[in-house]
Amino acid sequence: MTSVERIGVAGGGAWGTALALTAARAGREVTLWARDPGTVSDVRSRQQNSRYLPGITFDEEIRATSELSDFAGQDAILLVTPAQTTRSMLAALKPHLRPGIPVVLCAKGIEQGSGKLLTEVMAEELPDARPALLSGPSFADDVAKGLPTAVTIAAETQDLADSLSRAMASQAFRPYTSTDLTGVQVGGALKNVLAIACGAVVGRKLGASAQAALTARGFAELTRLGLAMGARQDTLTGLSGLGDLVLTCSTPQSRNFSFGIELGRGKTAQDLINAGGKLAEGAHSARIAVELAERLKVDLPISTTVAQLISGKLSIDEAITALMTRPLKSENAGA
Amino acid sequence: MTSVERIGVAGGGAWGTALALTAARAGREVTLWARDPGTVSDVRSRQQNSRYLPGITFDEEIRATSELSDFAGQDAILLVTPAQTTRSMLAALKPHLRPGIPVVLCAKGIEQGSGKLLTEVMAEELPDARPALLSGPSFADDVAKGLPTAVTIAAETQDLADSLSRAMASQAFRPYTSTDLTGVQVGGALKNVLAIACGAVVGRKLGASAQAALTARGFAELTRLGLAMGARQDTLTGLSGLGDLVLTCSTPQSRNFSFGIELGRGKTAQDLINAGGKLAEGAHSARIAVELAERLKVDLPISTTVAQLISGKLSIDEAITALMTRPLKSENAGA
Repeated sequence: MTSVERIGVAGGGAWGTALALTAARAGREVTLWARDPGTVSDVRSRQQNSRYLPGITFDEEIRATSELSDFAGQDAILLVTPAQTTRSMLAALKPHLRPGIPVVLCAKGIEQGSGKLLTEVMAEELPDARPALLSGPSFADDVAKGLPTAVTIAAETQDLADSLSRAMASQAFRPYTSTDLTGVQVGGALKNVLAIACGAVVGRKLGASAQAALTARGFAELTRLGLAMGARQDTLTGLSGLGDLVLTCSTPQSRNFSFGIELGRGKTAQDLINAGGKLAEGAHSARIAVELAERLKVDLPISTTVAQLISGKLSIDEAITALMTRPLKSENAGA
Repeated sequence: MTSVERIGVAGGGAWGTALALTAARAGREVTLWARDPGTVSDVRSRQQNSRYLPGITFDEEIRATSELSDFAGQDAILLVTPAQTTRSMLAALKPHLRPGIPVVLCAKGIEQGSGKLLTEVMAEELPDARPALLSGPSFADDVAKGLPTAVTIAAETQDLADSLSRAMASQAFRPYTSTDLTGVQVGGALKNVLAIACGAVVGRKLGASAQAALTARGFAELTRLGLAMGARQDTLTGLSGLGDLVLTCSTPQSRNFSFGIELGRGKTAQDLINAGGKLAEGAHSARIAVELAERLKVDLPISTTVAQLISGKLSIDEAITALMTRPLKSENAGA
């Protein structure tokens, strides 16, 4: 089994810092790279990341750096920057990594433009490294505080998934392993789209019953797309699929869910961008999922509605009607 | 197709009254039977059920009665009394119903003592009637207020499921049909057990990530038991399975979830009974599910923990440890 002792974490946001803490608690030697010099000095001088994890002081030792070259001697890298920065980050990491190093992608999403899964992006940019994924229902705050969290760690081989799991595991942080890279990524990407739909229903005050029904129909949609892409059913039902969907579709801590709430209250995506906001990841993934679904001949009514709402093709009234009043039919007929 | 114009609703609680309102909104002629004479006169004189649905006045006409003999001319009956009263209610209804009448069981649970599904109880007590089920993520309050709700209506034949669906459907209330009586009932019973476990984790303040992970593992458990009993996968993933699980495991309006929260805060089941409370339905179903699982050789770790917590075999500390710290393993290995 591969031994993983030194872990480099690329990304000094809330999730990167929480995962760095997690690795340190599991007994690893951790180097955290952050783009923001303030974060680096904050970690170095005060053992905290007050910008992204206010109020949490690190009991564990974490080395901070702003130089990717400090990753030269690592046994594994966790890449914890937003999905759409994956390609450029992998290119920037490339000169500093030894061949065969496991690189664990921790972002959830599909690349805009190419419509590629992040492991496909990695195969192009960093073909010598071994791809892995960390995904599942987890808030950075909960993880940083040491509350119990279960995630999926996936790699192409069971051996690598086991090594990475052992390297990150502690009493509070429980990784389950998988070798289904496609399934983990489809779940992670589509749950963001579905969370926008659930948020819209909640922003519209349609009640918990409507929200739960939409979550169940959303899971059926995620399952259809996943299976068509070659995912395994048990991955989709697992932590990175259903588990993360349930969390993202129910808690305002999720950016996609709260973005959906604003849409449900009558703001348009353009209003939110004009006000200085960013499109939530699910807004990008919606359009890509719909394109994928057309190619694979799968019906994704909820994602289609979200994509049309974001692009302005549907008003929020029309979108809510589309989400809520599907024809009466058998549950066993698909869609 | 069977024509259903006159519907008798047996049960004047919140859910029975909400379903009576739903049938009336769908254009049916509705007779509501209530055991409580106060409820009958409240509905008759003031068009409301102030005891169970305070603040809601009925715009629709609902006839109220305390005599089951008033069900003589009905086309279908909805039985909306607690699961454990099903046998006695069916026996009481028997003399007043015409042979072949559809009886829609709206309670969720397994009979104590016999361990039987409610349709099995009905086959014994009312073999001349046609069994059907109404289940899914729905709060009486939401439904009574006309918020959008989707449910499953199941019957042995698609024709009967279609007839009952059309009889109950309106813009806000969307029944989906199924012919999987076993699947609908397993989902409805086991979600109550799993909601107790989720409530315990929330009462213990373990965070939303832990709650979501437990919901996903709970769904895997519900699926294992359901498939072993002959349920269909798409029923378990549908409204009456996953949809209702998501709702019940996340909203304190659910009796089972709030019962679990009290256990998580350190009360024992005996404390709650001594304080004049009742065991939540899931507390009964947990023990029965564990017995079923032993017979069918299925592993139900969460239900087993709930049953042991209720019976006092495990303390809450031991139960939480059992729920949260399962061995690290592959997601694809079952259990």
